[in-house]
Amino acid sequence: MNGFVSFVSAGPGDPELLTLKAVDRLQRADVILFDDLASGPILVHAGERAELIAVGKRAGRLSPKQDHVSRLLVDHACAATRIVRLKSGDSGIFGRLEEELRALDAAGIGYEIIPGVPSACAAAAAAGLPLTRRLTARRVQFVTGADITGDLPEVLNWSALADPGATTVVFMGKRTFPRLAAQLQAHGLPGETPALLAEAVGHPEQHLLRTTVSALAERLAQSRSDQPALILYGPLAPDGSAKSALEE
Amino acid sequence: MNGFVSFVSAGPGDPELLTLKAVDRLQRADVILFDDLASGPILVHAGERAELIAVGKRAGRLSPKQDHVSRLLVDHACAATRIVRLKSGDSGIFGRLEEELRALDAAGIGYEIIPGVPSACAAAAAAGLPLTRRLTARRVQFVTGADITGDLPEVLNWSALADPGATTVVFMGKRTFPRLAAQLQAHGLPGETPALLAEAVGHPEQHLLRTTVSALAERLAQSRSDQPALILYGPLAPDGSAKSALEE
Repeated sequence: MNGFVSFVSAGPGDPELLTLKAVDRLQRADVILFDDLASGPILVHAGERAELIAVGKRAGRLSPKQDHVSRLLVDHACAATRIVRLKSGDSGIFGRLEEELRALDAAGIGYEIIPGVPSACAAAAAAGLPLTRRLTARRVQFVTGADITGDLPEVLNWSALADPGATTVVFMGKRTFPRLAAQLQAHGLPGETPALLAEAVGHPEQHLLRTTVSALAERLAQSRSDQPALILYGPLAPDGSAKSALEE
Repeated sequence: MNGFVSFVSAGPGDPELLTLKAVDRLQRADVILFDDLASGPILVHAGERAELIAVGKRAGRLSPKQDHVSRLLVDHACAATRIVRLKSGDSGIFGRLEEELRALDAAGIGYEIIPGVPSACAAAAAAGLPLTRRLTARRVQFVTGADITGDLPEVLNWSALADPGATTVVFMGKRTFPRLAAQLQAHGLPGETPALLAEAVGHPEQHLLRTTVSALAERLAQSRSDQPALILYGPLAPDGSAKSALEE
């Protein structure tokens, strides 16, 4: 008799941005497998008797142990009734969800996927920026700045990424952004294109910086900060009254 | 003495996909301005004395009255303390958020933006589909299938949209999809590219259909269904055990 796995999207980190359904699943879980990122305040919603298991993935770090995580998940699902697999942001966006789904499929274990607030949406909201704009940003795209080795992915669609009519959000791209920015400019995106660096989104130490693509590339070429971050660029809306929330 | 406006993202429609922060703001609101889409079950979280005001926008319909909505919002913010402006999905994605922010800025009224679960994430989760895949879908993009007149937008980045390496989610695109699909195929996207039609996402009458780009275009050319819908296409993951949730 197998258990049932709820993939719970934890949102960006602020426990107030959990959904009611996510809280319900956390409260009723026998076992919760979580990545480092999704820990802390979110886990206060776990029931008293829940077993909490850190599986040790972190945004911005390499995660070579995906097979190990999938195996752990299957093992626990064979032993417990209600399993929660907690993933930060929305689990369907750069969350390695598919590998874990296929492992459960192979083992004949049922699951549900509970969507959540993507960190990209939380970063934009905190900065007072709509991700889409009626005439100037009719497309929004999320891309990863790192492949499994940590490098900039080899195959990228430069026409899509250097498009001045789209808002682009780069996940896990702080380290590779200087090279990405050089390529974007080589493909026609002006260096003065507005950009936002959003570090530790949804956490108490959240830090937002409005800048430009070229200035951000220079800054990050010299930075050794280990904070997880998102980078937004494109025809970002001008600062409104949310401006006071932005620091430097 | 002006009020304060909370832009509350209502998520796709399922009240269990509201965030804790959204519920808090609804409970404490004096006035709630909502679009038709975000009504019903979500509003059970409103406090007893809250004034509920439908502003009459609907997904898939033209919304020529944005100025009117913005004016209503400002008027109420001048008269009440706590105003909630409820928007479906995530308010920063195709929600005409910017126009309302600028109206509040001009009137000197403060606000916050509470991010939410985008309907695209909910549709993918319901279908058991990650929006990104490690090697095959490293980019996900959200686009609108309708400009302010209801037609396919005139300027679209075909290299981005016909990219077989991205998952694309089309908002408000059911009516224009046959024309969009023809253009996608003319720009090299195979007609057999997997597609998902997700109608009434997050509502009890939710309906999911897995198909292909060309078959969906044919179907929608003959359809007169008025249900709001999202269309996903790209290298969608194969059906897993979530398959049982899919009909047709």
